[in-house]
This record gives sequence, structure tokens and C-alpha cells, in this order.
Amino acid sequence: MTDTATKTQDDITKLMRDMGNRARKAAQILALASTAQKNAALAAMAASIRENTAQILTSNQKDLEAAKERGTSGAFLDRLMLDEDRLEAVAASLEDIAALADPVGDVIASWERPNGLRIARVRTPLGVIGIIYESRPNVTSDAGALCLKSGNAVILRGGSESFFSSRAIHACLMEGLQNAGLPRDAIQIVPTTDREAVAAMLRGLDGNIDVIVPRGGKGLIARVQQEARVPVFSHLEGICHVYVDKAADLDMAKAITLNAKLRRTGICGAAETLLVDKACAKTHLAPLIEALIGAGCEVRGDAAAQAVNDKVIPATKDDWSTEYLDAIIAVKLVDGVKDAARHIAGYGSSHTETIITDDNATAAAFFAEVDSAIVMHNASTQFADGGEFGMGAEIGIATGKMHARGPVGAEQLTSFKYVVRGSGQTRP
Amino acid sequence: MTDTATKTQDDITKLMRDMGNRARKAAQILALASTAQKNAALAAMAASIRENTAQILTSNQKDLEAAKERGTSGAFLDRLMLDEDRLEAVAASLEDIAALADPVGDVIASWERPNGLRIARVRTPLGVIGIIYESRPNVTSDAGALCLKSGNAVILRGGSESFFSSRAIHACLMEGLQNAGLPRDAIQIVPTTDREAVAAMLRGLDGNIDVIVPRGGKGLIARVQQEARVPVFSHLEGICHVYVDKAADLDMAKAITLNAKLRRTGICGAAETLLVDKACAKTHLAPLIEALIGAGCEVRGDAAAQAVNDKVIPATKDDWSTEYLDAIIAVKLVDGVKDAARHIAGYGSSHTETIITDDNATAAAFFAEVDSAIVMHNASTQFADGGEFGMGAEIGIATGKMHARGPVGAEQLTSFKYVVRGSGQTRP
Repeated sequence: MTDTATKTQDDITKLMRDMGNRARKAAQILALASTAQKNAALAAMAASIRENTAQILTSNQKDLEAAKERGTSGAFLDRLMLDEDRLEAVAASLEDIAALADPVGDVIASWERPNGLRIARVRTPLGVIGIIYESRPNVTSDAGALCLKSGNAVILRGGSESFFSSRAIHACLMEGLQNAGLPRDAIQIVPTTDREAVAAMLRGLDGNIDVIVPRGGKGLIARVQQEARVPVFSHLEGICHVYVDKAADLDMAKAITLNAKLRRTGICGAAETLLVDKACAKTHLAPLIEALIGAGCEVRGDAAAQAVNDKVIPATKDDWSTEYLDAIIAVKLVDGVKDAARHIAGYGSSHTETIITDDNATAAAFFAEVDSAIVMHNASTQFADGGEFGMGAEIGIATGKMHARGPVGAEQLTSFKYVVRGSGQTRP
Repeated sequence: MTDTATKTQDDITKLMRDMGNRARKAAQILALASTAQKNAALAAMAASIRENTAQILTSNQKDLEAAKERGTSGAFLDRLMLDEDRLEAVAASLEDIAALADPVGDVIASWERPNGLRIARVRTPLGVIGIIYESRPNVTSDAGALCLKSGNAVILRGGSESFFSSRAIHACLMEGLQNAGLPRDAIQIVPTTDREAVAAMLRGLDGNIDVIVPRGGKGLIARVQQEARVPVFSHLEGICHVYVDKAADLDMAKAITLNAKLRRTGICGAAETLLVDKACAKTHLAPLIEALIGAGCEVRGDAAAQAVNDKVIPATKDDWSTEYLDAIIAVKLVDGVKDAARHIAGYGSSHTETIITDDNATAAAFFAEVDSAIVMHNASTQFADGGEFGMGAEIGIATGKMHARGPVGAEQLTSFKYVVRGSGQTRP
């Protein structure tokens, strides 16, 4: 290693440590900030985004040109691209988050003891959140705003692809914080794309990051899950299942399967596998496959699926554990709800699964047997979303079982403390 | 390394991996066990403890003799020692846990969306808990029972000191599981005292341990916190503070300070530092110190404390961050509630702190400013205990902010899933 490289490494370590210390100090101030002050900051941020639209779009242009020079593809460019409509949506989203209830200070539970002690469990901020994301520049404002709403400081590390766009949006967030008299260090963005900055965050910045939320592709999530020494809220992938039970209404099964698979194929709540109860194979399998193929979906199936439609491509074992994120679905017969649950446990990703049935007892069995963050009955897996759950904005969906599970909104970014009120009690 | 050592290492790795796999399978069965079945197992365990008292005491004798041969001290021997009364308490504690409400299946929250989707957040078991503990053999039954009650499988790793006692108690737990038709693998005990077994648990047994709860001295907790690659519920130490505000009733301040410090000095909720508001130093400082010294407590104080009583020993900086676990207290003047909170943030352990004041606004400021798991007003810190909180048995107290904070009982050993009930909804 050359001296220059060593120096750079040291510089980044120092820079990141300093960001961590400043975030912790800002978090202590934010924890005491009033709802009105946080909402004023969010409103000022939205105003600043609208005022600085031209400047943000110029920065976005720089990112887009660099991406084109690297020969980047269409879907990627679309995620990166901002325009006036998208920036207005960013501003509106800040206002939506301002309109959410403030979770901090919420009394989750309270009770009185026989000795007169009154005990309450009260929501508090978590502290400092680290967000590591890739190309979408709007994560800058969504994540920054949700962390602010929940009283947390945040350290944002955007991808090199959206470097200029994210910094331009971040400047507007700074302006909003300052206008509301809140510390600018409450929302910091890492000013370098060096990967050592990510490594430092994953080590937790000397205890100054309490949780990390990665947003992006499977490669990023896997790296964060493997290397992080602090808790992580994430899902590696969404291999979501639709299980059509023998007591399913066929029309409902068709409508939900098509919606779950095809409404948007690129989101984590999109279905990837259709399981059909063999007890209704004769009546349900062929029409379901026909509907999917008719809607332009490629079907990869087991022997039974292949037997009912010659357009079905033979599925390999890999198909059962593949997140296509495309108009492709794997189809398999199973032997009732227990076998469906077994398949899901073996190949799923603990994200979202739905059962279609008119039999409530079978639905209850599905709910009990399937250990996923979200289990549904007679509804499309594409509802797996914080907004659709009524939680307002979400920072992501977690498939782990610790602390947050399912959509991660402002409430899931909080901890709690016990508040005990006495009148002089001593313990006998 | 010799070949023999290599083989042993491999054997332990294989043994632990196998325990992890079996625990995961047992957890899947336990998650579906009924409340009645779990309670039947707990009752059968209590019966087995009572029936096998003589045998357990013989095993305990072996541990005690080995400890005496090593020249172990009185307090340690007392923690290790079982007798008929203590075993009856162990059995009664199993029955108490049976009498607790079953947290699994509890609906934490539920709401309906405008599109008719009904969403519920329902408690589920966490999965597999790892317990690493030292000398107290009764942790075997308490931890095993709490994990069972909450639908979790558990892998227990007791200290070498209580090896035979813990195994004898564990045999009774096995009998209880078997009598109730539950898998024996639901409560496993590591059959070796090799430290590699602990290291394997801290690495998470290939994803087959979801959370680790260490119980024991600071050395054990520190090792677990540093090395664990899975979440940990723990507190390193309890440096608890009593803050006597200028608006404190002096008699109440005395009673609570004496109780918080001296009722039992060896528990984590015992106070270690007394902070006195300088605005009431003239009236409150001398009587508080006199009461402490009169009760046999050593007082180490700042200059102000030394000035009012010549028995006060000068405090060094280390005293502010020392968990004495003994009849010793550090005393310091502070400049009001904000300064008290600053001292606690700088030297405390985020466990439990109490304010003594007749001024509710000052108490509210203390509650807001102090970021500890438990904050109290006009009550003794010795109430920091799951039993005193009305939570039934506890497996420990957590000072982290993720998932569980404060006393960790059956409810804190659960996660949740979202259950969504529809009538055919597809997402527009």
C-alpha cells in the first residue's frame, strides 16, 4: 500500500468517526425536539425542494450523463432519473410524513401495581440510523424525513450513481432543518463514494450507529447482512407465494394471482410462485395457468402444470427459490395447506404469502403454519407495503424477527423506555 | 495443534450444529403448541423436580465439593448451593410461569383499511433462544420454562461450576416435555463445558439461534456482547442513580436512597451513585450522607460531600462509573436536573435511574432527558425487576434499545407477524 492510499484510508476513518460523533449529538437534541418543530422542518424541506427544482435537475443531469457514458441500461436510468413531477412527488412525500402521527412519546402500555407504582412503556427514538442505498435519489429525502419524524439522526450513504442528485436533495433537507432550528447534523450524507465509508458504517462507527437499513439490490443487501456488526432491518428478497386452496373461488384465485404476479413485477411483494392444492387441480390448475399465459406471463411448472398446458416450461429446482422480478411464475401442485407451508418454509424468503380459500379454518391453519412477516387471506401479495398498510411512508420491509418485521415506518424506528411513577415506594 | 485437539474441535462443532438443527425443528413444533399443552409440560416439570429432589441434591453436592476443592468463596458457593427449600422454589416458579398469560397469538394491534383489508399484528415466538449462564443452577429451569411459555426452543449452556446440578434439573424438564407430548429437543443443554461450544453459539449455529441471553458476571457479558454475531439481550452492569432534586421531600429522599442502595447491594438495580441538586445542598446533603453512613454504607464524595461529613472518602473519577455491588455509594452535587441527566449520560449504564422531587415538571424533564431503560419518580431503583413490574418471571434485564429493553419476560421473547384478511382485494 502506498502512503497516499494509507492516508486516504485514515482520512475516511476519521471522517466517518466524526460523522458518527456528530450524529449522536444531534440525536440527543432530536430526541427532545417537539412534534411541531420536526413538522416545521419537514415543511421547510418540501418548500426548499420546490424552490431548488432547477438546481436539483441540473445535478441529476450530471448523474444521468455519467451513467449513460458507462453504458447503463434503461431500467437503471429510469430509477435514477428525476423530473419536475418526480420532484413534486418528493416534496409532497415530505408533507405526507409531516402529517403522520409522531410516534415519540406514545404510551404503548400502562398499568398500576398493587403497591401503587404506575408503570408506562413509552416510545423513544432509537438513536442514529444508517441508510445505505443505491441508485434512487429520492431515498435521500424519504429516509431522511422518516428518521427525523421518529426523532432519529441519520447517516445517509447513497450510491455513486446518484451522487450529485442525492447531494442536491440533501442540501434542501439541511435548509429545512436549519429553518426549524434543528441541528444540521441530524441528516448527514457521506461525502465520498469510497467503499471504506460503507465498511466503517457496517462496523457501527464506534457505537454511533444503532441500526442499518440497506436499500438496493441483492448484492448490497447480502453484503450488509454478512458484514454488519450492528442490527440490520432488511429483506434479501421477496419470494412471495400464492396458495390456491381446494376451497378457493376460481375467479378470485385468478384475479388475485394475476394481480400478485403482474401488477408490478419488479417490487418485492410481487408473487413468484403459485402453489395449487392438488385436491382442486382438475378444476383450478388449467384455468389459472391459461389466465397467466394469456396475460403474457411465462409459466414454469412441475409435471402436473406441464400436463395441462403445453406452453408451460419445465421448472427446475432453482425455480422454486428464484425471485424473477419479471413476468415469470413458477407453478406447483401441493398436497393441502400443510404441504404448502412446508414448501414455503423450504424455498420462501419469509416476506409475504397469501392463501385463497373460502374456508376460514384452512386460512387459520395457513396463518399459524407459515412463518413469514406478512400472511394474507384472499388478498394480493402486492399489498405488502407500508403505505397500503396505512403506516404512511416506509423505509423498507424487514424479514428478520428482531424489533421490526414487515413494513418499517416511523413507529418501527423507535424503541421505548419504562417510566415508573411512585409516591415514595421502597422495595420490601 | 495435535490431531486429538483437532478432532475434539470438530466433534464439538458437529455436536453444536446438530443441537442447532434439532432446536430449529423443535421450535417449529412449539410455535404451534397450544397453551394447555405448554402449561401441562410446565406442571409436569414441577412435579418431576419435586419427585427427584434427592437426586438433584446429590448432583449439587458433587458441584459444591468440586467448588470447595478449587477453594471457591462463600458468595459463589451460596449461588451454587441448592437445598430442599430452594428446589421447592424452583418447582413453584415453574408453576408461576404456567399461570402467566400465553403471549403467543396475542393481537397487539388491529385496524381496517378503506379497501376493507383487516390487518392485525399478532405475537409469534422468536424461534431459538441461546442462554449462556454461570453458577446459578436455577437459571436452567427459569430460562427453560420462560422460553417454552413463549413458544421458543432453547439451548442452555450452563457454567462448568454447576454442571451436574444443571444437568439434573434439565433431566426433570425433559421429563415434563415428554409427559406433555412436546419434543425433548425444545430444551437442550450443552453436554460439554468446552469453551468452543460457547464460541459456536455466539456465531449463531448456522442461523439456528435467533437471540442470546447471557446471565452472569461482567466478564461473561462483555465477551458475549463483543463476540456474538446474533442479537443479544443483556446489561453489562447496573450503575443506577438516585437524583435528589431541590423540590425533594427530605424524608422520602432518605428512605428511597437507603432502600435503593442497601436493601440488597448485589443486584443490578441497586443504586451506585447519589446525585444531589446543589440548590438543596444546605438542607439535604448532610442528612442524606449521615443516614447512609449511619446505615453502614461507605460514602465516597466530591468536595461538597467531603465538606459536610469528615467520614466521606474523596471520590476519584473512577467512582462515578463503578458498579460497587457493595455497601459503598458515590455522592456528587449537580446543578439541577439537566446536569444530573448529563452526569448520567456520561457515567451511567442506561439501566435504571430515579428522581426524588415533589415537582412533576422536573420529573417530566428527568424522564425526557434521561435515556435509560427504566426511569423512575419517587420510587426505589430496586423495583427494576420483571416480577416487581408484574411481568411474572424475567430472564434478565436488557439495556440495549433493539427489540427488548428493561425486564425481559415471556412477552419480550416474542416477535410478531402481520395477518391480513381480505375478501378478494387486488391492488389497483
